[in-house]
Amino acid sequence: MKPLRQVSQSVSIDSGQLQCRIDAIASLGGTRLAYTPADVEARSSVLEMMRQLGLKTAVDAVGNLIGCRPGRLSLAPIAFGSHIDTVRSGGRYDGVLGVAAGLECLASLAAADYVSRHPLEIIVFANEEGQNFGALCGSRAMIGALSPEDLLRVDETGRTLAEAIKVVGGNPRQINSAIRQPGEMAAFLELHIEQGAVLESVGAPIGVVEGISGISYTEVKLSGMANHSGTTVMDLRKDALVAAAQFVMAVQEAARQGGCRVATVGRLAVHPNSVNIIPGEVLLTVELRDVDRNKILETRRYLRDCGRQISERTGVGFEFTERELIDPVPCSAEVQQAIINSCEGMGVRYHRLPSGAGHDAQMMGKIAPMGMIFVPSAGGVSHSPEEFTAREHCALGAEVLLQTILRLDRDEGRGLE
Amino acid sequence: MKPLRQVSQSVSIDSGQLQCRIDAIASLGGTRLAYTPADVEARSSVLEMMRQLGLKTAVDAVGNLIGCRPGRLSLAPIAFGSHIDTVRSGGRYDGVLGVAAGLECLASLAAADYVSRHPLEIIVFANEEGQNFGALCGSRAMIGALSPEDLLRVDETGRTLAEAIKVVGGNPRQINSAIRQPGEMAAFLELHIEQGAVLESVGAPIGVVEGISGISYTEVKLSGMANHSGTTVMDLRKDALVAAAQFVMAVQEAARQGGCRVATVGRLAVHPNSVNIIPGEVLLTVELRDVDRNKILETRRYLRDCGRQISERTGVGFEFTERELIDPVPCSAEVQQAIINSCEGMGVRYHRLPSGAGHDAQMMGKIAPMGMIFVPSAGGVSHSPEEFTAREHCALGAEVLLQTILRLDRDEGRGLE
Repeated sequence: MKPLRQVSQSVSIDSGQLQCRIDAIASLGGTRLAYTPADVEARSSVLEMMRQLGLKTAVDAVGNLIGCRPGRLSLAPIAFGSHIDTVRSGGRYDGVLGVAAGLECLASLAAADYVSRHPLEIIVFANEEGQNFGALCGSRAMIGALSPEDLLRVDETGRTLAEAIKVVGGNPRQINSAIRQPGEMAAFLELHIEQGAVLESVGAPIGVVEGISGISYTEVKLSGMANHSGTTVMDLRKDALVAAAQFVMAVQEAARQGGCRVATVGRLAVHPNSVNIIPGEVLLTVELRDVDRNKILETRRYLRDCGRQISERTGVGFEFTERELIDPVPCSAEVQQAIINSCEGMGVRYHRLPSGAGHDAQMMGKIAPMGMIFVPSAGGVSHSPEEFTAREHCALGAEVLLQTILRLDRDEGRGLE
Repeated sequence: MKPLRQVSQSVSIDSGQLQCRIDAIASLGGTRLAYTPADVEARSSVLEMMRQLGLKTAVDAVGNLIGCRPGRLSLAPIAFGSHIDTVRSGGRYDGVLGVAAGLECLASLAAADYVSRHPLEIIVFANEEGQNFGALCGSRAMIGALSPEDLLRVDETGRTLAEAIKVVGGNPRQINSAIRQPGEMAAFLELHIEQGAVLESVGAPIGVVEGISGISYTEVKLSGMANHSGTTVMDLRKDALVAAAQFVMAVQEAARQGGCRVATVGRLAVHPNSVNIIPGEVLLTVELRDVDRNKILETRRYLRDCGRQISERTGVGFEFTERELIDPVPCSAEVQQAIINSCEGMGVRYHRLPSGAGHDAQMMGKIAPMGMIFVPSAGGVSHSPEEFTAREHCALGAEVLLQTILRLDRDEGRGLE
């Protein structure tokens, strides 16, 4: 029997190979909305990469791609991963880095003939971005939180989530077979770009995430009166866009004046949207994020009151539909410590921070000790074609991921088994 | 030779027939954007109506439909008409009333075997609403104000105005053949719904229009920075929609605080328009209307300054593109007097007012003595499926149109010959 190499220092990431892998995935369609042909094509490529690494691959019932590398012992697997779907006009690193780095960790172990104690599992989660059907579909299903009603939700084309899941090789009728019970996973790690400018501003190449912000999604419908723009005097108008403008300002002020950390109106549509017709209807979305659930709820109530006041003042009707509330999730203290130990072992500066973005890791955090590693986003830019993370930061993040996997695998007194 | 009946009292409008004709045109497609199949179909029907009235019909080079009834003398024709194209989700009376009433005037004269001194001409103007390519295309071409550049303008589908004109039977290469020189028309009259609530509020069934508001169209592009909504702190955002909201409020305030009479942001589009991306770009339109050209220009300058200030405050770039400025047009004093005399002759209450909307009549006013007759719009609602004008008001408007045509034809000392 071949002697096993167990000294983690001898295993390390090949920065050039990592960059090739990032480029290979990122160049598969600039926009890869989940369940579209571009997403399907990129998933096939990643599955092929897994096979080339000798992993045992599977597509679970919700469409998550899973690659397994056996361990020496009969233990729960240590899992890591991210996603490859994008928002509209998104960037090249969001999600892709975590998948590429996870594959490179496994490639490094293979190159070093290193066999871990735990089985290792890389997961590429389906529909993280939720441009249709709501975010985190794949990871949500994995913890049993995707409901039969969710499967009936439709996208802009009228397609249900159940139908979309079939397109990526899932089986919506057997959706429960994707569920992992608490204890079935020894730990979950996700490397991701920060998507903000905190690490850049403090000059740290690695972020140790303390917890993931909760998110509230609300849809608002404003109903005014469409009318001729030349003949309807200002005082007799019920202009839905003028009311919407006041509400957009209120959303801003709510976040700036100590409400939840960030608040955004990202989508807004005007009807009938003609140069010479007073807007009769506006539909818009409000998104609130904070690591404190109560702040989210307070801000949501405050904005509902603002809407009522604007409605009374303008005569424009307001309807609020609360679509979703994702709870904030703290990261595991043990996993955070393992990440910190890896950084200190490598002599790398790190900074502790909350995650403003939602991540699949927050779902995994409900069934397993979970941690996240951030690397800097140049200028804090993300969800944009200008999204960029320096090559050395990608490599450093992947190396911290690898060393943390190995530390957790050695179980350094944390009782993950 | 058959004796000619020349007493106008013996000629009058059949209110039931008028209503049938309004319904017949209005039911041809709820929305009839110019140059679409619905518009083409409705134009064919109206051309057929003209033929059934024994008119000599023609489609001029820009696509205006023209029906002629000969007169006894070799004089310039008295013309009247309106349009049958609509805005998106428009109403049943805007434009259609003037066309239906014009046809009924000619039907009444035919039924009474009344031959006028002047030739009479009904004109159905092409693309009045200007949902694509800008408003008043047909009447603009008729006064020689449609430029070669206008013909190259494209709609949302990439079709040029020249191509669109061919679809309605026009000949864009011979566009100048549509031009009428000053003096070629003895007078022009347009009956139209008020589209505002002034007549209703003063209780007058007939409006005598004093002049038509000028209109300025400006396109504004706001360029911010698309970014992740969860990770980009509020202070570092360049949210194009937040800047747009401030600008929409500024447009409101400009009109309310003594700027031009009405100011409207009717169209607004957000890019990329995703729930979890900070809006990177907003395109919007600003429309300003007043009977005083200077007020329009002052307000436009003021709003440009507002945009610059918002830009400095928010870091979002503003670009202003002034698309069009249509001058206010006064109505002919002589034609106004003929309308007033008709009302007084019929014992009908009238009210003098400006037109807030643009009309083909304002183009005709540059080459001929021009007047407009308004009838009340219920609740002031127009450019909306709820647009409504009572049957008796439609009939009264048509009767005033008919009597005014006959008064002008008799030339009662106004020197229109």
